[in-house]
Amino acid sequence: MAESEPKIGIVGSGSWATAMIKMLGDNEVQKHVLWWIRKIEDLTYVKTYHHNPSYLSAVELRVDETNLYTDARQVIQQADIVVLNTPSAYLKAALREVQASDFAGKIVVSAIKGIIPDENLIVGEYLMKVYGIPIEQIVVIGGPCHAEEVSLEKLSYLTLAAKVSDHAEQLGKLLRNRYINTIISTDIFGVEYGAVLKNIYALAGGICHGLGFGDNFLAVLVSNAIREMETCVNAIDPEESRDINASAYLGDLLVTAYSQFSRNRTFGHMIGKGYTVQSAQLEMNMVAEGYYASACIQNIIQGYGLNMPICDTVYQILYNKQPAALEVKKLATKLT
Amino acid sequence: MAESEPKIGIVGSGSWATAMIKMLGDNEVQKHVLWWIRKIEDLTYVKTYHHNPSYLSAVELRVDETNLYTDARQVIQQADIVVLNTPSAYLKAALREVQASDFAGKIVVSAIKGIIPDENLIVGEYLMKVYGIPIEQIVVIGGPCHAEEVSLEKLSYLTLAAKVSDHAEQLGKLLRNRYINTIISTDIFGVEYGAVLKNIYALAGGICHGLGFGDNFLAVLVSNAIREMETCVNAIDPEESRDINASAYLGDLLVTAYSQFSRNRTFGHMIGKGYTVQSAQLEMNMVAEGYYASACIQNIIQGYGLNMPICDTVYQILYNKQPAALEVKKLATKLT
Repeated sequence: MAESEPKIGIVGSGSWATAMIKMLGDNEVQKHVLWWIRKIEDLTYVKTYHHNPSYLSAVELRVDETNLYTDARQVIQQADIVVLNTPSAYLKAALREVQASDFAGKIVVSAIKGIIPDENLIVGEYLMKVYGIPIEQIVVIGGPCHAEEVSLEKLSYLTLAAKVSDHAEQLGKLLRNRYINTIISTDIFGVEYGAVLKNIYALAGGICHGLGFGDNFLAVLVSNAIREMETCVNAIDPEESRDINASAYLGDLLVTAYSQFSRNRTFGHMIGKGYTVQSAQLEMNMVAEGYYASACIQNIIQGYGLNMPICDTVYQILYNKQPAALEVKKLATKLT
Repeated sequence: MAESEPKIGIVGSGSWATAMIKMLGDNEVQKHVLWWIRKIEDLTYVKTYHHNPSYLSAVELRVDETNLYTDARQVIQQADIVVLNTPSAYLKAALREVQASDFAGKIVVSAIKGIIPDENLIVGEYLMKVYGIPIEQIVVIGGPCHAEEVSLEKLSYLTLAAKVSDHAEQLGKLLRNRYINTIISTDIFGVEYGAVLKNIYALAGGICHGLGFGDNFLAVLVSNAIREMETCVNAIDPEESRDINASAYLGDLLVTAYSQFSRNRTFGHMIGKGYTVQSAQLEMNMVAEGYYASACIQNIIQGYGLNMPICDTVYQILYNKQPAALEVKKLATKLT
């Protein structure tokens, strides 16, 4: 490959990162894809078989065997565009050896839709605060896009949000392909907070489903959820031109709240069925981002004095161990 | 029953009318329920067994055996509140013998979410035009509410829209019960047009599903659909206070586009799979309201010069017999 070809580094090897490797492989622009895979045994498997043994294992991955690393710093140092794509709870560990200077001058992309635990920050804010990355260098990837459907090559849309549209466009050029369309946005905070909030609402939908509520109620819940999301995002970052019904906000909420693939919905369903948080997490063997998001958003609700009854309900159930049936019954009287 | 008790007449005996008979029976206000059932054999069955043999047949119906009629005029003449609840395509036939004077001074409720074929009018407009009913006497019942979940007593919300809120409230008092909540609105045209449009979007969702598109695409489609609905309803009846994300609009769209019970989605799915309109209608043995709605809305789009690519696509497929795969491919390039 020529030296002038862009180098894109993917940090993460879960299902969403694996889906991104596939998108990049099916995009026709000549580029250099560097991939950080956490476990050496997974890396060896990918190198040998060109499949990820742990996630989306049916997908054939077009990666250069010499560009696989278990050291995230090596990937970040070489890349022009760094895509952070771990579960939010594992980002700190992935970046343990990485220095602020490693990100200097690079486009840093967050494909993580979640809150950094303990920090109560969305990823964009965390990158700015801890690594001093200027907001102009950051791109946020929003949905609506489940990794599972990318693996099946079902037509999907990504929203790429950046203050500098040219950076979003550079990334878009590398991701678009026959089954991926991209939408460019400048609403970096709105897209990221929307993606965080939708996990809480999907979790709420799962709780209600687990309790035996039906589609009629879910429709009312989701219609209230998007209005709550609008309230919250507009409080954090007022922006006249934002349409909360755009794909990055409403679409992302819908794909998560209604899809069979949603981890947050599944997690909520187990809570509704009576599992404790701990046993649901054990059983799923996956992190439901909405769990961490709930605590973070609760701080925001209190800080701004917002009226967000669905998020309140989820928080009461998950963190204050209130009975789900009772909390949802109270919530039902507040929905309009 | 005392003479002062309200008399409510239900005109229709399909699944939604049957669900309403159940709601009224489970509501605790003393009232007189009159019921028009089209077929004498169904009426006899209801009288004998207190179940509707054709729709929601598991549901036990608390009706006074002396208040069942096959003559709609008798029901309308006696009732204080008349609820029209047939499929829109059968309303004209149901009201064949009915005179404008029969509606004089009564609250007339439309529970029909559709267009009167040939007339290209929503039900409210049809009642005003043909029967001279003043808009102040009309109430529109919106969702989101599938009849099937009412039969299962799953918590559901109805939106009751009227220019005179007191009329909506009078109806609400008779319908609310342990599993039915009501939301009062003054947006009579918005709720009715929203309910009509959502059938077209559910049909579009079904077509895409039938063609093999997945949840990621459906989320983008529905997120575009609600924005189209807003464009259309605001063009027909500009109303500053309308929030298109309220349950009557977005909620109703969601329950229809995502539910397994939706006739419009099922109809669209068959079109996507390659059925002709005629064979899909024969196979379903039920009317998909979205089919008639599509022609009516197309007139409105042209009249107002609106940009509504999803409705356009459905119209091209259903009425101009354009290939679904090609039309949806074109549509996909217009979604944002």
